[in-house]
Amino acid sequence: MIRVGIVGASGYTGVELARILSNHPQAEISVATSRQYAGQPISNIFPSLRKRETIVCENLAPEELVDRADFFFTAVPHKTAMAIVPTLIEAGKKVVDLSADYRLRDVQVYEQWYQKHSSKELLASAVYGLPELYREEIKTTSLVANPGCYPTSVILGLAPLLREKIIDESTLIVDSKSGTSGAGRAASVASLYCEVADGFRPYKVGGTHRHIPEIEQELSLLAETDTKISFTPHLLPICRGILSTIYGNLRQDISAEDIREIYNDSYGAEPFVRVCESGAFPATQYVRGSNCCDIGFSLDKRTGRIVVVTAIDNIVKGASGQAVQNMNLMCGLEETVGLMGAPFFP
Amino acid sequence: MIRVGIVGASGYTGVELARILSNHPQAEISVATSRQYAGQPISNIFPSLRKRETIVCENLAPEELVDRADFFFTAVPHKTAMAIVPTLIEAGKKVVDLSADYRLRDVQVYEQWYQKHSSKELLASAVYGLPELYREEIKTTSLVANPGCYPTSVILGLAPLLREKIIDESTLIVDSKSGTSGAGRAASVASLYCEVADGFRPYKVGGTHRHIPEIEQELSLLAETDTKISFTPHLLPICRGILSTIYGNLRQDISAEDIREIYNDSYGAEPFVRVCESGAFPATQYVRGSNCCDIGFSLDKRTGRIVVVTAIDNIVKGASGQAVQNMNLMCGLEETVGLMGAPFFP
Amino acid sequence: MIRVGIVGASGYTGVELARILSNHPQAEISVATSRQYAGQPISNIFPSLRKRETIVCENLAPEELVDRADFFFTAVPHKTAMAIVPTLIEAGKKVVDLSADYRLRDVQVYEQWYQKHSSKELLASAVYGLPELYREEIKTTSLVANPGCYPTSVILGLAPLLREKIIDESTLIVDSKSGTSGAGRAASVASLYCEVADGFRPYKVGGTHRHIPEIEQELSLLAETDTKISFTPHLLPICRGILSTIYGNLRQDISAEDIREIYNDSYGAEPFVRVCESGAFPATQYVRGSNCCDIGFSLDKRTGRIVVVTAIDNIVKGASGQAVQNMNLMCGLEETVGLMGAPFFP
Amino acid sequence: MIRVGIVGASGYTGVELARILSNHPQAEISVATSRQYAGQPISNIFPSLRKRETIVCENLAPEELVDRADFFFTAVPHKTAMAIVPTLIEAGKKVVDLSADYRLRDVQVYEQWYQKHSSKELLASAVYGLPELYREEIKTTSLVANPGCYPTSVILGLAPLLREKIIDESTLIVDSKSGTSGAGRAASVASLYCEVADGFRPYKVGGTHRHIPEIEQELSLLAETDTKISFTPHLLPICRGILSTIYGNLRQDISAEDIREIYNDSYGAEPFVRVCESGAFPATQYVRGSNCCDIGFSLDKRTGRIVVVTAIDNIVKGASGQAVQNMNLMCGLEETVGLMGAPFFP
Repeated sequence: MIRVGIVGASGYTGVELARILSNHPQAEISVATSRQYAGQPISNIFPSLRKRETIVCENLAPEELVDRADFFFTAVPHKTAMAIVPTLIEAGKKVVDLSADYRLRDVQVYEQWYQKHSSKELLASAVYGLPELYREEIKTTSLVANPGCYPTSVILGLAPLLREKIIDESTLIVDSKSGTSGAGRAASVASLYCEVADGFRPYKVGGTHRHIPEIEQELSLLAETDTKISFTPHLLPICRGILSTIYGNLRQDISAEDIREIYNDSYGAEPFVRVCESGAFPATQYVRGSNCCDIGFSLDKRTGRIVVVTAIDNIVKGASGQAVQNMNLMCGLEETVGLMGAPFFP
Repeated sequence: MIRVGIVGASGYTGVELARILSNHPQAEISVATSRQYAGQPISNIFPSLRKRETIVCENLAPEELVDRADFFFTAVPHKTAMAIVPTLIEAGKKVVDLSADYRLRDVQVYEQWYQKHSSKELLASAVYGLPELYREEIKTTSLVANPGCYPTSVILGLAPLLREKIIDESTLIVDSKSGTSGAGRAASVASLYCEVADGFRPYKVGGTHRHIPEIEQELSLLAETDTKISFTPHLLPICRGILSTIYGNLRQDISAEDIREIYNDSYGAEPFVRVCESGAFPATQYVRGSNCCDIGFSLDKRTGRIVVVTAIDNIVKGASGQAVQNMNLMCGLEETVGLMGAPFFP
Repeated sequence: MIRVGIVGASGYTGVELARILSNHPQAEISVATSRQYAGQPISNIFPSLRKRETIVCENLAPEELVDRADFFFTAVPHKTAMAIVPTLIEAGKKVVDLSADYRLRDVQVYEQWYQKHSSKELLASAVYGLPELYREEIKTTSLVANPGCYPTSVILGLAPLLREKIIDESTLIVDSKSGTSGAGRAASVASLYCEVADGFRPYKVGGTHRHIPEIEQELSLLAETDTKISFTPHLLPICRGILSTIYGNLRQDISAEDIREIYNDSYGAEPFVRVCESGAFPATQYVRGSNCCDIGFSLDKRTGRIVVVTAIDNIVKGASGQAVQNMNLMCGLEETVGLMGAPFFP
Repeated sequence: MIRVGIVGASGYTGVELARILSNHPQAEISVATSRQYAGQPISNIFPSLRKRETIVCENLAPEELVDRADFFFTAVPHKTAMAIVPTLIEAGKKVVDLSADYRLRDVQVYEQWYQKHSSKELLASAVYGLPELYREEIKTTSLVANPGCYPTSVILGLAPLLREKIIDESTLIVDSKSGTSGAGRAASVASLYCEVADGFRPYKVGGTHRHIPEIEQELSLLAETDTKISFTPHLLPICRGILSTIYGNLRQDISAEDIREIYNDSYGAEPFVRVCESGAFPATQYVRGSNCCDIGFSLDKRTGRIVVVTAIDNIVKGASGQAVQNMNLMCGLEETVGLMGAPFFP
């Protein structure tokens, strides 16, 4: 039984980690931290966990954490993460960090989009935790940078096409829509029920969202050339789910069957990536609560473009589920343990 | 591995059975029927099941079914169920029937609220499938009548109070609210998104809902006297969940602590019933996707009444989850196998 | 043209007043206050008002307000209201106060449920602003206490039955459900989209909601005897709307036709109260965005009870619409001016 | 008082026409048709209209209609419309047709995307009913083809940019999201609450939606060159609203201020088009229930593209509100009569 620590247990990624781990046969939560709710059982904060998870939240410094678990999830905001992770790594622990702090290989890019980086020395050994791309590296590292939710949905959708040079990477337009859990659990007027419900809006229009450099880093590696995208995120009146609609010009004439084969070559054996049959497309409600990423596409002959559509549950494959998938790999467990529950629909 | 048949796989209780069974370590779906979708993989009807469940739906007569599975769930409308169940039982199969056909012990009551009964001879051996009340009987029967969703939420909430004669059973008022999945998957204007969303309404006002005789049957047995209730169902703009608010006059002065103790005596050891701590109350979002029933209560000193609030997921504890719980008991498995997933929140 | 001041323009009742007044042919907003948004056009806070209302919010003391308008709506929390209203009344202005500060005739009851009252001298002249009950008094007063949202839905539903002594007032149980706009626009975790959406919960269970004394005050006057109710509010995942389901024992045998006649006698000529035809019941989506109150009922012969169901839009008939209805009456305008828009559905 | 006929009153555009006209000071509904609900008051179908609109639906042939009104809205599906409109026009009536039948100038394009056209002779005199583009033509015609909902949102967003040749029309990508009322009121599994709620999906991916030729017709006229777009519609879990996110490459370096000026030149005086201030963007909840079209934009310097975002209420500006705006123009009334209500938020 792996003893697992959750640093930052009172946010939506924290409760989702607790939900998954409460039913994981080879891991148990041995410590959970929350400044705000210290002293309270996690089931007080999230009554969904009544009779399922009894851990009590504590307010602990990094040094106090190290002996309390073998494996750590840091589910805290960027900047906070890089103040905690080094202590855990130095103590020989394995860590999946759910923040952005170790995702960007180029510290200058990080500092341009975020702020000063105080833990640069760990960047070289950190692995970008997308198992479908970096499975082997994840198995042997101590530090995984868990991908952002939008990047997961975009990179998985484009990877096979960029590898095969089917799409003109200078024409990529990504129109993404996310459920509100992505905005976190902090009290704010903009996230109130009445501001979000029965409505829809874009935000960070014009290429300013911080997930852009992360997406471009991975797409550039796949395309083997510097790649820039237009990216517009939107806020959906749903709790869970991201759907990305991705447009790009085809480099050459190619049939839908050939493209489907390329996708199936990449993902046919993947337990969590599901390529839709011809004529079918992803929907957030078909991945809800699961670690699945669904991918569909269509060729627009009239305009010479391909439209790729992907869907994930932003707090499962887009955060906590992928984090447990990484933990399984890092700990030598079966990759799918605790994660094979089918999406719940309706 | 128990080979399981789902008769009526294309409704919401059907897909929920498939979801639960697809991740059940000791059961597998060996046959699934659907008249409308015969020949199609269930994952075509419900893309949520892609890569999780590969069964193909068939249109089969009862006699064709018997050899295809060891255990059957009949998830078809009342009347249809009683045309299928006898054949299965006669062939020595075990059956959980999710319809109303075997729930009412008194055939006259059934015929008054539903229609003519064509399978009366099985009524005597059918067990009402509420494990918290009839666990031992369920273990040894071949036919379980799976309770209705509203009845589950009401009976579990009132059982301890009626057994202890704390509440005046002539004053019971039950105000229930259900998610829209309870209306089923048939195309109808009344269940369209735009008719339900951002709205709320009662239906079957004035004591006409067919779950009333089922609730009164069980409450009368618990109270050891004929018990009638006022019951008003309402339609919530949510997919899953029932919340029942139940009012009754207290027979005597009693403290909240004493009542809490009575609830804990009944349910402390139950894996799926969770009594809320003092001051806390159930919410449908805290049981979503799980087999849990949450119960809270408050004394209204000003009026001498007790208010009991219960919440379940109507298609899990109110239907398919409870059905699998019954299957586990009937087959000698651990009662909780495949059902211990925590509710997903948010 | 009546010059109207809105004190507290940045909440949901404030924006709803602005919405209604922006299209009112005989009134215009001459001043609007907001501490938090001082200096900003109201259309910055609520972009729905772009090109419809240009007023700029100011932070003004009560004395600075008096010359800026002829008529005032105070849409601020209780306690804050009674610090402002006296100055306006003394200056000869007419006021509709949307807080609870002037609703309770008995100052002791107010102080028991709220806090110390600092403006008792105005209580005697304040009129409870339910036009269907107090139309003539409203026309001649300078201070109207605008009713609470829940009380409006309950009192209108029960008034005809209590006046005619048809219902046993000692048996009244009120189960109410409100949209989330009723929780206001303050940032709080409990009102976040992800905490409310796709869910349903009760709150203030057990007779503790502050609208209880207000409801009981008016029901007691109608019944001509001290009347206590059991009242449970619930939070609906919708923006606008309250639906109350009200139960009571009938005093005598009476036909549905006779009861319908009683309702029609009371409300047939009312522009904003709509009695549903036999077999039909209110739904919040049928009053959405309008000043209507819909009422339906059913007799439950099995239990000797009547079930009354009412629906209003909580921020129109339950707040800002009723406030403008009162303004129209107080200013000698046609009662319905600016308020006859039909509900929007879907 | 203009006597107005609504042909097809039982759909969502029908009830919206009735809602708007019930409060229109210079028009009244003199006849309303519905095959399915013939003989029923419209308020039976849509209880939102209780005490607001008393018209009774009838099942009438086109010839029976002509004497019953001066002005007609045909709110029936394409193909059905062109079987009715000619009779009305020949009888000298004015008509706004809400179907697609008279929107495409080129009958071959119509027949390629729809079916055989049986009323070609009227195409030449039909005016495309977008008042912001064709105000003068609308004033003098007898037949207006009311634009589609998606086309309204796209054409208004792009018109100023195409006229000024700022954007490369060969790079246009339109990612649109629509509320579910756009799917109409027919019973279908795909539009059930549980299939749509808490979810999001694309449909008609790959350039197959029938609004494409309509959009391209108008964009080509504006750009003065043949223009093709990539267009992907999505289904939002909201009742009302369309938001379109539109991407295009800039032809030249231009400042945001200059673009804002171009938009303001086009729309500054328009009562129903609202250009968002710098840094602000449209949201469907800010136009809900109104005839407004909100437009915002951002320059993405990194990629040389402009992102334009527009929002409308699909059944107001996208259908019935725009239809009444056209009626006002065709009848010599003030264009804004009955349409100046502000959006309702929340």
